Amino acid sequence: MTDPISLSLDLGERSYSIKIGENLIEDAATHISPLLRQPRVIIVTDDNVAPIWLKPLTDSLDQAGIKTQSIVLPAGEQTKNFGQLESLVGDILNLGIDRQTTLLALGGGVIGDITGFAAAVTLRGLNFIQIPTSLLAQVDSSVGGKTGINTAYGKNLVGAFYQPRLVLADIGALRTLPRRQLLAGYAEIVKYGLIDDPEFFAWCENNATSLIDGDPDALAFAVHKSCQAKARIVSADERESGQRALLNLGHTFGHALEAETGYGDKLLHGEAVGIGMVLAFELSNRLNLCDQGDVGRIRAHFEAVGLKTKLDGLADSSWSAGKLMEHMGKDKKVEAGSIAFILAQGIGKSFISRDVNMLEVKFVLERALDRF
Amino acid sequence: MTDPISLSLDLGERSYSIKIGENLIEDAATHISPLLRQPRVIIVTDDNVAPIWLKPLTDSLDQAGIKTQSIVLPAGEQTKNFGQLESLVGDILNLGIDRQTTLLALGGGVIGDITGFAAAVTLRGLNFIQIPTSLLAQVDSSVGGKTGINTAYGKNLVGAFYQPRLVLADIGALRTLPRRQLLAGYAEIVKYGLIDDPEFFAWCENNATSLIDGDPDALAFAVHKSCQAKARIVSADERESGQRALLNLGHTFGHALEAETGYGDKLLHGEAVGIGMVLAFELSNRLNLCDQGDVGRIRAHFEAVGLKTKLDGLADSSWSAGKLMEHMGKDKKVEAGSIAFILAQGIGKSFISRDVNMLEVKFVLERALDRF
Repeated sequence: MTDPISLSLDLGERSYSIKIGENLIEDAATHISPLLRQPRVIIVTDDNVAPIWLKPLTDSLDQAGIKTQSIVLPAGEQTKNFGQLESLVGDILNLGIDRQTTLLALGGGVIGDITGFAAAVTLRGLNFIQIPTSLLAQVDSSVGGKTGINTAYGKNLVGAFYQPRLVLADIGALRTLPRRQLLAGYAEIVKYGLIDDPEFFAWCENNATSLIDGDPDALAFAVHKSCQAKARIVSADERESGQRALLNLGHTFGHALEAETGYGDKLLHGEAVGIGMVLAFELSNRLNLCDQGDVGRIRAHFEAVGLKTKLDGLADSSWSAGKLMEHMGKDKKVEAGSIAFILAQGIGKSFISRDVNMLEVKFVLERALDRF
Repeated sequence: MTDPISLSLDLGERSYSIKIGENLIEDAATHISPLLRQPRVIIVTDDNVAPIWLKPLTDSLDQAGIKTQSIVLPAGEQTKNFGQLESLVGDILNLGIDRQTTLLALGGGVIGDITGFAAAVTLRGLNFIQIPTSLLAQVDSSVGGKTGINTAYGKNLVGAFYQPRLVLADIGALRTLPRRQLLAGYAEIVKYGLIDDPEFFAWCENNATSLIDGDPDALAFAVHKSCQAKARIVSADERESGQRALLNLGHTFGHALEAETGYGDKLLHGEAVGIGMVLAFELSNRLNLCDQGDVGRIRAHFEAVGLKTKLDGLADSSWSAGKLMEHMGKDKKVEAGSIAFILAQGIGKSFISRDVNMLEVKFVLERALDRF
């Protein structure tokens, strides 16, 4: 691969490109320079990513005469909180900025989310660019403008819709990713197949092994397909008043599991979404919407690649269906007390439902908790 | 006055009405009901305003079958900080909300700014309505969608452009306002005359006494004229990429004074802007842009109504022109190191300048500090 693949996310004056390819970090200046309004960027990254990717990035920008300053945050979901946001914004202001200054998020979903939110609110809006280094960020969180932080009341309950000016997805960055992180991101790739692309799900079944082993062509294809699907859905519904909610397949269940495990290393976001998608299909089956065969096929695929599909090893005696359902009730997609579920009539046939009988949800959760 | 005056701020799908009149709080339900997406509002107010206006407001909404819940914050500029934002957002989430929930800001500029910002970021965007109870909020801060909080680095450096769905300016609320607060708000009224309406400045000179004594017709006329001017400027430049900066006449100097006095009771925002406008005209005169007669006329008018025009009683030996200029350098309107000043070729002839010689600014500040 030489030239990066370039996609565009069409949102009128907020439109931007998503570039996917090799060596994009080493060649960052080529892609970033035309977008800068002053020869300076502030790079926000974390202490996992900085030792590997900060130098190649700053080298590229330095050589192009672009001044760089860096802020390194602690890695991990715990960083997405109010205290870190306040300190990040303070650090940014302390560097002496103006509205022409560009922030550059170099890292996974956590770095992209908190940096994007800081960009949205600092001086009421700075330019920002996403350089996602995790698979999850490349195929999901860096695209579409959702930014934010977590609170004690739930995940991503505070934030802004704020679009970047460019997304640079460097496939090479995925080679340094721990296998567990790669797998978690892979769950979000499968999601696009399950939503509305059964052929892509079949591709996943056939190519997952080489993708997870780091085959660049498989990775580039999957990242491209995922970004394409996400760009299509987001450009039709930027602020999630309708179909964008499809992207939350597996997330209503998944967020409840994350809330119960404390948003930490015990269960990564992608892992939670993986289990959540299995539960969403189990619920769909329970509601006679899809075959048990579909549920089995998804479960089998996840197990084949090494993704969790069950709650054993996670849930202890303090867990209950009631507590998980309480977490669901705090989701942003709740309206007038009714929780939005993404259900499916089969693989690639997902839809949004607001009238699910919560007794059926309880049944599915209790069965998953082995307390039926 | 019976029917309120209604103005509209035209911003496409973000357009909204500004209603000005008597008894708007007591009749709030009439104006608010048509905009609600569920029969429920969360009222955010402060401990100065709550004892007077919370009951009339909730009575009106109760009678219309609209459920109300209230959050009361400490009064004063100190409330506009990250800690209060976090706790406000937590309190809102704790009430169990969804994206259909409407926030209602009942109070002065501080309440409007922090509530609007909380609305912008909670669940990535809740509806909100402004019921400004101070003159300053009615003629300035409640209109135009600027929301935010202060940081150690300066005032309003963190926030969002986020428009309300309605502004209800109840002239009756101004009758309970302390005279000092009313005067501070009056400075922002005079600003619209100084920007581009010399006839309105003359009206101010002739009617200030009755306005400050609480004459409802004078208040309604001045609030109407001010909102009209602000709506015109904001609808042409919502995100301040150009002419909206005219509204910052007196604010570059004023913010520096507020920073130096700690954003507290020592110097109210409107008082700072009043002194700031005098300094902006003094700078304009020093640059041979306007006559000393214009400066004198403004100073005379402010002194006649009881607004401060000088730094005596404020500045102590720790103040210096250099420190004030350092505060200016942190303003949001700084670009590539150049500070935006609003200068004037006379009363009603203001314009934006980015190439002011800072030695002249220093001269004007040193003269004001009596150290020339």
